[in-house]
Amino acid sequence: MSEYDVLCIGNAIVDIIARCDEAFVVDNGIIKGAMNLIDAERATFLYERMGPAVETSGGSAGNTAAGLAGLGGRAAYFGKVAKDQLGEVYRHDIRAQGVAFDTAPLGDFPPTARSMIFVTPDGERSMNTYLGASTELGPEDVEEDKAKAAKVTYFEGYLWDPPRAKEAIRRCAAMAHEGGREVSMTLSDPFCVDRFRDEFLDLMRSGTVDIVFANEHEVKSLYQTTSLDAALDAFRNDCKLGIVTRGGDGSVVVQSSATVDVEPVKVREVVDTTGAGDLYAAGFLYGYTRGLDLGHCGKLGSLAASLVIQQVGPRLQVSLKEAAAEAGLI
Amino acid sequence: MSEYDVLCIGNAIVDIIARCDEAFVVDNGIIKGAMNLIDAERATFLYERMGPAVETSGGSAGNTAAGLAGLGGRAAYFGKVAKDQLGEVYRHDIRAQGVAFDTAPLGDFPPTARSMIFVTPDGERSMNTYLGASTELGPEDVEEDKAKAAKVTYFEGYLWDPPRAKEAIRRCAAMAHEGGREVSMTLSDPFCVDRFRDEFLDLMRSGTVDIVFANEHEVKSLYQTTSLDAALDAFRNDCKLGIVTRGGDGSVVVQSSATVDVEPVKVREVVDTTGAGDLYAAGFLYGYTRGLDLGHCGKLGSLAASLVIQQVGPRLQVSLKEAAAEAGLI
Repeated sequence: MSEYDVLCIGNAIVDIIARCDEAFVVDNGIIKGAMNLIDAERATFLYERMGPAVETSGGSAGNTAAGLAGLGGRAAYFGKVAKDQLGEVYRHDIRAQGVAFDTAPLGDFPPTARSMIFVTPDGERSMNTYLGASTELGPEDVEEDKAKAAKVTYFEGYLWDPPRAKEAIRRCAAMAHEGGREVSMTLSDPFCVDRFRDEFLDLMRSGTVDIVFANEHEVKSLYQTTSLDAALDAFRNDCKLGIVTRGGDGSVVVQSSATVDVEPVKVREVVDTTGAGDLYAAGFLYGYTRGLDLGHCGKLGSLAASLVIQQVGPRLQVSLKEAAAEAGLI
Repeated sequence: MSEYDVLCIGNAIVDIIARCDEAFVVDNGIIKGAMNLIDAERATFLYERMGPAVETSGGSAGNTAAGLAGLGGRAAYFGKVAKDQLGEVYRHDIRAQGVAFDTAPLGDFPPTARSMIFVTPDGERSMNTYLGASTELGPEDVEEDKAKAAKVTYFEGYLWDPPRAKEAIRRCAAMAHEGGREVSMTLSDPFCVDRFRDEFLDLMRSGTVDIVFANEHEVKSLYQTTSLDAALDAFRNDCKLGIVTRGGDGSVVVQSSATVDVEPVKVREVVDTTGAGDLYAAGFLYGYTRGLDLGHCGKLGSLAASLVIQQVGPRLQVSLKEAAAEAGLI
């Protein structure tokens, strides 16, 4: 038996979240709904203009690890923080959720990564990420015992932004496949896909990655098409298992010869979409690593996503395990 | 015309908030519903046991300043943070709310104060506060231009815990009264009242403080009685204006010859009571500094408190100004 259900690898980021109006996003040149990479100077500029905020641990794959552990799954995490207060917050939160996290922290410079997230009245989040210490994640941070002990190794496409994380990923993927285990990734963001389209397609077509999560915008960006059907047809041939989330329209799971449509879970009010895709992946992978059928996995994903968009921030403040039990899904 | 409606003075604290069950509070020797003062060692002990948390600026008088500014009032704040990441968060949040905040930060040790707040399923908060840098607030931090320019100077009883803040308060109070302005305080916490009962009574009876905010538990603690009526009778004689909040039972404003009962504002669900008293004071003082009648001031206080207990954390994530306008109160 594997010691972990999922090993998650990603940029370890503390989220700084505030509401703003639509004009703020436009006036400050922020691409709405996207992850905007920023440098230290831009971070200072935006923080001075940002309203009062709340802080919470974040990071895409970190959110997935936390969600998986919140369901009762066994999760591990690789990600790099600095030896500073935000790094301490990050380490605390993910460990307190029950995730195994032992990546050695960097010194005190650059500081722990932070993302200034502006949430507009429609609930959409626009992220502005200063990668800081997280850029230093490299192959030396691969803990072999964990990399060899996870049923699924899951990483974020965002890891192609820092210089050496991809080396860590290739090493983990090789170890996973040597042990007969699977590798999964999320395409992360349509602009991230745009930056690394050829590399992501190569990861899929070479079999380095088996299971790919994307939202509608990302999969369309991957195949440079406006047609979801065209994108899905290409997607099902490029990966063993593809999962596309479609916001309020549910999600669809595709394989070469099968398609499973998953209904969305109705929500009262979309408060903040931060973490929706991350929590979907958490729910799906919890089911997947327990051998549940794909529709059941999708329902777990939809439930987790529906809960996280009804609160501020990407780490669930309610019990996902209780909610899944109430919904009869676990 | 005064430049500021209210100058607020308090311990500048970042809140670290997590949910817990009732057993956690008992098992860890936390006095429920109270502000428990802790040292660095106890802080480490509790943080290791705390679940995943969210961070937000807090501090009683800081919350009042932020609430007042959120209503459109002109607020200033004195409070001491360190030159560290949490101090930067604190300074950002209060300034971003429009509060004038210029207290010189301490160096990098001791660090910025933090309070680990455990919220039980009933919505009650139990605070565990490590005062850190905030203990260094002293009379040298009194900015005369601000102290002389506020209609009301408001401070927290909690300031009697650190060694020299009381000197700053006495200096501000003297300046306020020399200019014919008023001084207000909150009794803060029943155990804080217990620690400083004689000094608080002296502040009131000597006329150092004109307007006193308390909740039911605090005013009973002040007069060491279980009878609210007995406490109110003593209270009305000891201060020019006394305001007692009673949770779901509303509030009562007392003067030597008058009593005004204020209805509570109904809430859907009590999520987290952190900041309830602070926001009540914000609403009340906003009305008071505009010369509104006491009942109207109380209604503004009740509205502000009702909003903050329906969210996590003491800094409002919704617009208090819009809510007050909708309620026809401004």
